[in-house]
Amino acid sequence: MKSTNSFSERPDRVRSAGRKPRADGVRSRQAILHAAANLATTRGLHALSIGELAQHIGMSKSGLFAHFKSKEELELATIETAMEIFEREVLLPAAKSASGLDRVFALAEAFLAHLERRVFPGGCFFVAVAVQLAAEPGRARDRVLGAQQQWQQQFVDALHQAVDRGEVRADTDIDRTVFEITAMLLRANFAWMLSADAAALDLARAGIRDVLGHPADSSRPHDRPKRSRNSRRRT
Amino acid sequence: MKSTNSFSERPDRVRSAGRKPRADGVRSRQAILHAAANLATTRGLHALSIGELAQHIGMSKSGLFAHFKSKEELELATIETAMEIFEREVLLPAAKSASGLDRVFALAEAFLAHLERRVFPGGCFFVAVAVQLAAEPGRARDRVLGAQQQWQQQFVDALHQAVDRGEVRADTDIDRTVFEITAMLLRANFAWMLSADAAALDLARAGIRDVLGHPADSSRPHDRPKRSRNSRRRT
Repeated sequence: MKSTNSFSERPDRVRSAGRKPRADGVRSRQAILHAAANLATTRGLHALSIGELAQHIGMSKSGLFAHFKSKEELELATIETAMEIFEREVLLPAAKSASGLDRVFALAEAFLAHLERRVFPGGCFFVAVAVQLAAEPGRARDRVLGAQQQWQQQFVDALHQAVDRGEVRADTDIDRTVFEITAMLLRANFAWMLSADAAALDLARAGIRDVLGHPADSSRPHDRPKRSRNSRRRT
Repeated sequence: MKSTNSFSERPDRVRSAGRKPRADGVRSRQAILHAAANLATTRGLHALSIGELAQHIGMSKSGLFAHFKSKEELELATIETAMEIFEREVLLPAAKSASGLDRVFALAEAFLAHLERRVFPGGCFFVAVAVQLAAEPGRARDRVLGAQQQWQQQFVDALHQAVDRGEVRADTDIDRTVFEITAMLLRANFAWMLSADAAALDLARAGIRDVLGHPADSSRPHDRPKRSRNSRRRT
């Protein structure tokens, strides 16, 4: 089983260079990064110019410069902090659940609950930032995509357990089912950000129950069907 | 039946002030706005400072100023242009299809095809821009949310037709089914932007067939269930 600690197993952990950060009042590096992660979900990762961030958190630009020697370092450290928050707020609560289908529901519920609690003001950090980084190859983008793949892998692993235990049909199309489950979560995130209406979270919960009530069958291919008027009869 | 022209029925159509725009080479106002709509999907609507946009499309800042007297006017006109493009590229092709369930599939297919053709470089214009505007009340946000509501209404109307014709069960939960269908489209948009892998578009096609193969049943409530370990048995 994939450990929920996979978010910690990072070969490229970002550390500030050897230089010891200056004290700057009560602001710790961690507090700065937490503020940066929050800001990235509403203003964008690129809004994290050192000057703007300093202004936002009310410290001097030179004080902040002591912590981060470049914009890239700040962005990577912000992503790492967001991963730690996600691990604590979503993955660890879900890990308390048993494996298999219970774990699938627990992962989804932990994600929706973290939206509802507004762990980040702009919804899921990784969705918000991925959209901005989509067209920008680089280390920041790689880290965010890696985090998303690890998140999806949690569902893949739990669904394989569910198949092994006979909780879902043996011919369940795992990748397609994970696509459909994460579609509900993404849709909820989007609607929640725009409307702040908790009904969207409940629609996602219902949608996931609908997906798992009739999991996609691997005997029905998902490659491109002929799009005739009758193609829907395939369902 | 809701006309596909609903995107044109806009009380607040944005027009430049009475002043006649100066000619500026071959650049028309429409060409500028098309470039602006494209840029908004990758750089953000707020990246449309008049100076940056002028540089991006290779015209003088003063030439562009002749067309738009404020940043807000530019943003609103850009949104309107995106709506016209969406109408031409997605709604009109779908409108050629019959109504009911065929229309549902045609709407989804037209959306996925517009992603695949890269009508906008950053995927769905309205998703890209809505995410940026989520926390910014104002006319731009209202227009984008209005466009999304009109888009969802197309699915609602087509599903009601499908119910009336007996193509789907009479007790189908329409709102929940539309949430699930648009979840697949949003998930495809997200994956396509990040991976450019057409498999994501096919997963969405399959997901929509899965949703419509077992449409959500309105007798099963989607309000908050008790999240016991057994809650999934409700499915």
